[in-house]
Amino acid sequence: MKQSLVIIKVGGKIVEDAGSLDRLLKDFKAIPGNKLLVHGGGRSATAMAGRLGIESRMVDGRRITDSDMLDVVTMVYAGLVNKNIVAKLQACGINAIGLTGTDCNVMLSEKRPVKDVDYGFVGDVKSVNAAFLAGLIEQGVVPVLAPLTHDGKGQLLNTNADTIAGEAAKALASTFRVTLIYCFEKPGVLMDENDENSVIPYLSYYDFPRLVQEGIISGGMIPKIQNAFEALQAGVSSVLITKAEALDKFTGTTIAL
Amino acid sequence: MKQSLVIIKVGGKIVEDAGSLDRLLKDFKAIPGNKLLVHGGGRSATAMAGRLGIESRMVDGRRITDSDMLDVVTMVYAGLVNKNIVAKLQACGINAIGLTGTDCNVMLSEKRPVKDVDYGFVGDVKSVNAAFLAGLIEQGVVPVLAPLTHDGKGQLLNTNADTIAGEAAKALASTFRVTLIYCFEKPGVLMDENDENSVIPYLSYYDFPRLVQEGIISGGMIPKIQNAFEALQAGVSSVLITKAEALDKFTGTTIAL
Repeated sequence: MKQSLVIIKVGGKIVEDAGSLDRLLKDFKAIPGNKLLVHGGGRSATAMAGRLGIESRMVDGRRITDSDMLDVVTMVYAGLVNKNIVAKLQACGINAIGLTGTDCNVMLSEKRPVKDVDYGFVGDVKSVNAAFLAGLIEQGVVPVLAPLTHDGKGQLLNTNADTIAGEAAKALASTFRVTLIYCFEKPGVLMDENDENSVIPYLSYYDFPRLVQEGIISGGMIPKIQNAFEALQAGVSSVLITKAEALDKFTGTTIAL
Repeated sequence: MKQSLVIIKVGGKIVEDAGSLDRLLKDFKAIPGNKLLVHGGGRSATAMAGRLGIESRMVDGRRITDSDMLDVVTMVYAGLVNKNIVAKLQACGINAIGLTGTDCNVMLSEKRPVKDVDYGFVGDVKSVNAAFLAGLIEQGVVPVLAPLTHDGKGQLLNTNADTIAGEAAKALASTFRVTLIYCFEKPGVLMDENDENSVIPYLSYYDFPRLVQEGIISGGMIPKIQNAFEALQAGVSSVLITKAEALDKFTGTTIAL
């Protein structure tokens, strides 16, 4: 039987605040067995860009990454956020390693072709070096992935952290029994966005189009759930959408095919 | 017989200019066998600090690292400089991985005690995870070390890149036949600092105090050569001081006990 692996994606808001990060790391430590963490850092990147006089431009919640902004996200994601998380995990006795997609070619991507929008230096994942990640995990190491990839030709590329988590989960599903957990601000997918008690406990592939049509699921949640279905179709055992503060309870919305 | 390992330390000036970095990486690729690269990035850190309105303070060529400056060096060394080098090495077909001392506890340090000068968040190396580095190298991976360490209690610390290279060399000397090469602006240690043809080909432990006394060796070169002697005493096979542009020729000053 395959060993289990829990992949947790946390957004910028959690990792950028010292208090919530400390709580997350405590909960993360409490999860038994193999683990992998994927983090964002968009808020810090936007703040740092502002201090440097670089304008942050977003289209449908996605960042436009020109050359200056690529330098900012490389500094903030791979440097400031990633290394501080790793240092704090090491202090908890977790043997973490911070990686971007270029390190040991962990995640190779291609620059997104320009269609309606030129997203700039943004990469769509082409392949994952699952053997290298699995080798680390089997040694007891916890990879901490920053949302950056590369094109194999020397160019770093900005890649959405939800996508990084989904691609890592899919690639590792042949080696491990993977549980993928997306942490965000709400305790799960809500029937009523103003009522945190209205969590949908199970969300199936069958119900999804209707919930989107009715406007119950919208915005950034749509690609998150699409990533979740893709992960399940690729062999990931289960996908959970929850809030970081509930990570110790494993409650939230379970996505099912 | 032990396998060989070449450890190369390059200063900021080389890695921060696209032209000289490309040349360095070409020469680096041409070196056969196992390799490890250590880089600086001080000039970029100073420039980035300036853009952020953070003052760079140096005492005897050593950076004072307050909390704001630690964030800057973490962004620049571990993010911008390290990941761009790794992406370029990957593009050359070299399977590089970027690491700081906190990743897999590669280099544990302690915050330098305050004596005459409070250097702030600066770490003196206590131990190296040689087993992890050796495991990577034996897999054909090339570690690229940024000059940051951690104290094991969650605190990142700024550590001189020459020291990182020396400590890595010493720790790996029991597994590999290590050649340590310090690249800087000059073609070696010079008898006359204004004459690049006055390279001292061999510099012995016996000659060193006299050359310092006569003022021929001074400033930042003194700790560099002291690091070199320590490395040799700890079992490193040879230490060379040269300029990056001469890396393909293996010329320069050989340090000998």
